[in-house]
Amino acid sequence: MAQPHFDHLETRSAAAREAALMESLARQVAHAKANAPYFGRVLADVDPQAVRSREALAALPVTRKADLHDLQAEAPPFGGLVAGDWGSLARVFASPGPIHDPEGRGPDWWRSARALYAAGFRRGELVHNAFSYHFTPAGVIFETGCHALGCTVFPAGVGQTEAQARAIAGLRPSGYTGTPSFLKTILDKARELDLDTSSLTKALVTGEALPPDLRRLLEDEHGVRTLQCYGTADLGIVAYESEAREGLIVDEGAIVEIVRPGTGDPVPEGEVGEVVVTILNPDYPLIRFATGDLSAVLSGPSPCGRTNMRIKGWMGRADQTTKVKGMFVHPRQVAEVARRHPEVQKARLVVEREGPATDVMTLHCEVADPAATGLAAAIAESVQAVCKLKGQVRLVAAGDLPNDGKVIEDARPPATPA
Amino acid sequence: MAQPHFDHLETRSAAAREAALMESLARQVAHAKANAPYFGRVLADVDPQAVRSREALAALPVTRKADLHDLQAEAPPFGGLVAGDWGSLARVFASPGPIHDPEGRGPDWWRSARALYAAGFRRGELVHNAFSYHFTPAGVIFETGCHALGCTVFPAGVGQTEAQARAIAGLRPSGYTGTPSFLKTILDKARELDLDTSSLTKALVTGEALPPDLRRLLEDEHGVRTLQCYGTADLGIVAYESEAREGLIVDEGAIVEIVRPGTGDPVPEGEVGEVVVTILNPDYPLIRFATGDLSAVLSGPSPCGRTNMRIKGWMGRADQTTKVKGMFVHPRQVAEVARRHPEVQKARLVVEREGPATDVMTLHCEVADPAATGLAAAIAESVQAVCKLKGQVRLVAAGDLPNDGKVIEDARPPATPA
Repeated sequence: MAQPHFDHLETRSAAAREAALMESLARQVAHAKANAPYFGRVLADVDPQAVRSREALAALPVTRKADLHDLQAEAPPFGGLVAGDWGSLARVFASPGPIHDPEGRGPDWWRSARALYAAGFRRGELVHNAFSYHFTPAGVIFETGCHALGCTVFPAGVGQTEAQARAIAGLRPSGYTGTPSFLKTILDKARELDLDTSSLTKALVTGEALPPDLRRLLEDEHGVRTLQCYGTADLGIVAYESEAREGLIVDEGAIVEIVRPGTGDPVPEGEVGEVVVTILNPDYPLIRFATGDLSAVLSGPSPCGRTNMRIKGWMGRADQTTKVKGMFVHPRQVAEVARRHPEVQKARLVVEREGPATDVMTLHCEVADPAATGLAAAIAESVQAVCKLKGQVRLVAAGDLPNDGKVIEDARPPATPA
Repeated sequence: MAQPHFDHLETRSAAAREAALMESLARQVAHAKANAPYFGRVLADVDPQAVRSREALAALPVTRKADLHDLQAEAPPFGGLVAGDWGSLARVFASPGPIHDPEGRGPDWWRSARALYAAGFRRGELVHNAFSYHFTPAGVIFETGCHALGCTVFPAGVGQTEAQARAIAGLRPSGYTGTPSFLKTILDKARELDLDTSSLTKALVTGEALPPDLRRLLEDEHGVRTLQCYGTADLGIVAYESEAREGLIVDEGAIVEIVRPGTGDPVPEGEVGEVVVTILNPDYPLIRFATGDLSAVLSGPSPCGRTNMRIKGWMGRADQTTKVKGMFVHPRQVAEVARRHPEVQKARLVVEREGPATDVMTLHCEVADPAATGLAAAIAESVQAVCKLKGQVRLVAAGDLPNDGKVIEDARPPATPA
């Protein structure tokens, strides 16, 4: 599949990329440790020069998105994770939480230009940007990439569906950025008002799942070729689709790991786990940032010629913390139980309901020998010690647990309204 | 009053500024004529090299904001007024009308940095920007100036009052940009929620009038020093207050004239008239753009040391088109009548009601000799010919008409609901 690429970085050999990334990684760890007080603390015992491999990276502590709010509240405004101050940063955002998200200066800081290019956006085009610019960085993430590509942006923001439809008819943009559901809403409104939106032939979407039905409808009924990307308000763009439409290709400025939820331990290739990202920009040097999102590595290179690692799209939320008998149970507690028993290769806590109101939980464990004497009882003791809750244990053979990234499965019937 | 200035341009001699502006003006006229098809047409007979004086400028045609919508509809998207295309422009906006507003590339394109500096904003500060970024350029106008100054911006946008109050308490910005009424709304909400907004000590406001009472309240009760500026979505910032608080100082990148509404004729210094602006940026080379806003020149220089021309704040809308006996009467018709009688120095059409439902109009004319024989009758004939409506004429002495920029005064009682 011949498709042009943003630059030669996208098509270099895997070995050349890995060498370059690992060299940058060591520098980034040194920079974060020296200039961001939080990383100075959590990386105190780390020799940055030694962090030149995936294995060394996997040994570093993860920083969870779920913990950012508390870290920032303790040391406002950024919890000591940012290497910069007012003036050196271009913007700051307050995403729901609230979590403060910094933006450094310089072109394409959020790395959306590659994603836009892969979705067919080109220099000299007009882009209708229907992400919000207020409080959240979503709007700016795509605008700065458009500017780096050489596109003009119409900052449409969210809402005002009819005005957006009229703006498309009046300004005749080639591309759309925003959520896919809002694109459909705008195009439906335009049809209702008999407005011409035929200039719009491509879209780069994110912010929600892109169901195959919706993509088909946008493409077949409205003529808008629709590709997606994945990112967060902390990291910017992490991975993007190309015309190949086989998974999302990791951005050249990000190092992605997939780990067992609740831990920092990489899962075997192909297994569903939590997306953990290390970013190579200097202003917000996130090292092993656990996004709370689930995905999995797709093996092999993309047919479009881009050689970087691919991941599947967004596969759900990794934070499966739940309440059992009124007590919180966290994925990290499941991981701690497993850690105490080296026989356990993979564990999954299943929470069910017995009778009208009794929660019961069972830890399913993949082990080499499911008939091992005394193991289940020993694990059950650990469950009690770690979770402060009684749990049953069921030993299963390796490979028997589903590959869906779930460490805690809540199998209770949904609550019925009182 | 010792106050630092943005740069030496603000304090150069009036003669040096005028020479530089007129040199730039000739170049700008040549550029507009060559690169923006609309100006190529309306300036077809103009020799740009001859446009090196206020007098030569005053002889050029004005382009009215009120006509932009139709011009743009005839030749989308910009009516041929823009010297650039998709890609060379950074953004395009759709202000109410809708009117398309282009933004070129490059720092501080909208020229807000001087206004921010004059309002006390400085490098290394955080600014809470409560103008919208969606559809309208307001948000970006101030953001780009903040970036040029070296400030970080929190793009708050409009609405979400409580979240805005919480963002101020959480991020602790030094400055606010937005409308003055919304600033009061946010600060009141913060007080109600017992949030600390004491970091906020200065504001640059625009978009609506700044009543002295509101300014006092913001300054005395909330400790926010509040200065204002004037601009439009087409032009960017045109003039700004300084600590002197004596009028608004014209920006170094704008040439301002005050003209008789409905004409392109400059009024004598001090007289209220319509603000007409020529902008020296290459992307949107507006030559004699009639804003539809009223103001007046304030004579002499500002005590703050800035030497540029000063104008009073926004004094109302210049477009006084009204309906008389069901027919539209435009300021340009009043000007046409006056043009036909060189004796008339200034004219004002007063529309009154006789009895329950009869409109009567009287053209008040300042003339050297109010007793001149036959003049009133001759002018009345011109009124009939130009307006297709009968009108009385009253001759008054020079200086007798009020200085409020009104060419048409609607003195009829307000309509009472049926």
